Amino acid sequence: MRIYDIIKKKRDGFALSKEEIEFFIKGYIDGSIHDYQASALCMAIFFRGMNEKETADLTLAMAHSGDTVDLSRFGELTVDKHSTGGVGDKTTLIVAPIVASLGCVIAKMSGRGLGHTGGTVDKLESIEGFNTELSNEEFFQQVEKIGIAVIGQTGNLTPADKKLYALRDVTATVDNLSLIASSIMSKKLAAGSHTIVLDVKYGSGAFMKTPEAAKELAEAMVKIGNSCGRKTAAVITNMDIPLGANIGNALEVKEAIEVLKGNGADDLREVCLTLATQIVSLSKNIPENEARALTEDALYSGKAFLKFKEWIETQGGNPKMIENPELLPSPAFSREVKAPADGYVEKIDTEAVGIASVILGAGRKTKEDSIDMSAGIIISKKTGDNIKAGDTLATLYTSTENTLDSAEEKFLSALSFCENPPEISPLIYEVLK
Amino acid sequence: MRIYDIIKKKRDGFALSKEEIEFFIKGYIDGSIHDYQASALCMAIFFRGMNEKETADLTLAMAHSGDTVDLSRFGELTVDKHSTGGVGDKTTLIVAPIVASLGCVIAKMSGRGLGHTGGTVDKLESIEGFNTELSNEEFFQQVEKIGIAVIGQTGNLTPADKKLYALRDVTATVDNLSLIASSIMSKKLAAGSHTIVLDVKYGSGAFMKTPEAAKELAEAMVKIGNSCGRKTAAVITNMDIPLGANIGNALEVKEAIEVLKGNGADDLREVCLTLATQIVSLSKNIPENEARALTEDALYSGKAFLKFKEWIETQGGNPKMIENPELLPSPAFSREVKAPADGYVEKIDTEAVGIASVILGAGRKTKEDSIDMSAGIIISKKTGDNIKAGDTLATLYTSTENTLDSAEEKFLSALSFCENPPEISPLIYEVLK
Repeated sequence: MRIYDIIKKKRDGFALSKEEIEFFIKGYIDGSIHDYQASALCMAIFFRGMNEKETADLTLAMAHSGDTVDLSRFGELTVDKHSTGGVGDKTTLIVAPIVASLGCVIAKMSGRGLGHTGGTVDKLESIEGFNTELSNEEFFQQVEKIGIAVIGQTGNLTPADKKLYALRDVTATVDNLSLIASSIMSKKLAAGSHTIVLDVKYGSGAFMKTPEAAKELAEAMVKIGNSCGRKTAAVITNMDIPLGANIGNALEVKEAIEVLKGNGADDLREVCLTLATQIVSLSKNIPENEARALTEDALYSGKAFLKFKEWIETQGGNPKMIENPELLPSPAFSREVKAPADGYVEKIDTEAVGIASVILGAGRKTKEDSIDMSAGIIISKKTGDNIKAGDTLATLYTSTENTLDSAEEKFLSALSFCENPPEISPLIYEVLK
Repeated sequence: MRIYDIIKKKRDGFALSKEEIEFFIKGYIDGSIHDYQASALCMAIFFRGMNEKETADLTLAMAHSGDTVDLSRFGELTVDKHSTGGVGDKTTLIVAPIVASLGCVIAKMSGRGLGHTGGTVDKLESIEGFNTELSNEEFFQQVEKIGIAVIGQTGNLTPADKKLYALRDVTATVDNLSLIASSIMSKKLAAGSHTIVLDVKYGSGAFMKTPEAAKELAEAMVKIGNSCGRKTAAVITNMDIPLGANIGNALEVKEAIEVLKGNGADDLREVCLTLATQIVSLSKNIPENEARALTEDALYSGKAFLKFKEWIETQGGNPKMIENPELLPSPAFSREVKAPADGYVEKIDTEAVGIASVILGAGRKTKEDSIDMSAGIIISKKTGDNIKAGDTLATLYTSTENTLDSAEEKFLSALSFCENPPEISPLIYEVLK
């Protein structure tokens, strides 16, 4: 087998066999296939696409290119939730304890934030003492004991995906549905859970700008998951508007606690209940309405909040901060951003709002940057809200006073206003499985 | 400017600007643009193509990527002939002295043979003493004195083309008309002649298998040449049948001498006269019929043969070998290949015939191989010829007796036979300018 022939075959529009895809991934990892051949192949895939079988074969080949997490000791109820990335997306902090309180098993590795999107591991680290670097043994012991643990990524998971993604990123070959879907799903397969529920975001703050594009990606990923023997569903949710009100690490933990106490923002709660319903329905093999009733009960009865406290405390976090969120890191400086005129919030460029929070110190521009856990934004007016001149649109928080001016400027640039109520895109566009 | 944006622009179907193409070629040569980005761009070009302007811009950028030959001291009559490569193609040995005897200036760098195609420099070196490695000064002095010199490639001509071609060769991105045409024409532009006449071959022994494909390539190259200020024409000729009868270095010199003496094979003579006519017509700016009369006179009067002798002698070759070609290297062993049955020669796979001559020692499998100057094939029966069982189809010559069996087998595998006269593809398909 020669990589030249594989490139030519894809270039000429033919489907690659499982053996050819495995040959490519193996050779690319061991260095016998060069970057310049891999990039030519990715560009040929950009133009020719891959069918469902090729996409699944590529996903599996990448999933098996390095370490994989074996969760078989926990039985069939292992579940994973994945978000394609958004601004103010604290759903894992809420969904995980809901489903864990219902007997699902969450043994999850999660990412750090980069650019305008945050990461669950950073958010958890805003809680004093919370340890995201458990050893393998500690990780598995905690899952065994309380059914939930979330840590940072460890081990050599999906090295082929990492190498290939870095190459695609500099050769304009990222934007292909099969390649995007297989990249995400290879990590999910390697992470070992039986049930995978995907939160595929659309809108200004998401990778996919329209619900139609998000649906295409969701369909591709659900097909991969199901064809690889995992129970998979996708919820297509709105990222044209930040989810909930709070953006920033400690601020998002505070908001998650609010929701877990049965309060908080309606949009955030609804997305969390929808994701949790899919997880419970799939993993327990029960109808959706039954699963929905269970998750609502878990939330409103306080069971989920108890599970959250148990989780944080078991993993080293200061339980007082959960009982009294005012103890979470608090910023030295704040500023209220005022509405310039009467009218309605017409649109929010969520990505720009995310960048404003990075300016305040809540995120990283590069991997090496450190984070101001207390920094962020609380949004008071969202798309469609009626406003009067001088109303507070949002409050900016930071430990670095001199970031306030440029953050305010960035935040205001993200908003547009209009005289009549604008059309609002749906919070949950579709559920696929 | 970023190469990422250039790749993406081409990927998305837009035409690249002159500045973007120059940025790419410059960066690729200085190493700031990586192989993996160049291969992704070539694959995007494979799918999206390049328009005439882009193709000309790429050609010029590659032509100027290294040394260029300045022939301006020789005025406006500098001419170059280029063949896209064939089997038994000794036209340069005939065309060059014809046009030089008419006042055109040939200051030509020529290639060596590789694989199934031969090279003019190798053929000339079968003449005792002929020096293909003149210094720049000697080269220009000889051109000044007698109007003709042909040497091997020297200097760092078109390094961008060399580097890019080597990359395309291992990434399945060779087969794009714009890239093929710009690769050939960049070398012709760098070589400095005012008039460029291209012999674009089609058929089993050529890169382009059909006359239509050859015509597309010819059109692309003629457009590049003309848009870059060179007088350019292309003659599309048949390589479904070897040109003339002889294949192999000394054997081809012998056949060229035959033609220059007014004898030799009709097909070979006609292709040479057609090429010479185009060169004379374009360079002297005279009508084709007038140019044809001049070239025929140069050939049949013996003027071209005298110029050939003068050329060979001036460049160090033994003139006795020209006067008496029997003195050229002669092989120790030969074998006649016999017709298996009555009928007609239906088809000749010219590439396979070329490979048979390489087996006999007439060519190189790799760049490092040495050549048996005396080895080769004289073909007695060509496509369409009527044959009787036992007729001699060809005679194989070699200094290495044990190559005869496999060469004969290869040669016979190249021929097919039929009962009725087959259709013959035209010798000269079209002339373009």
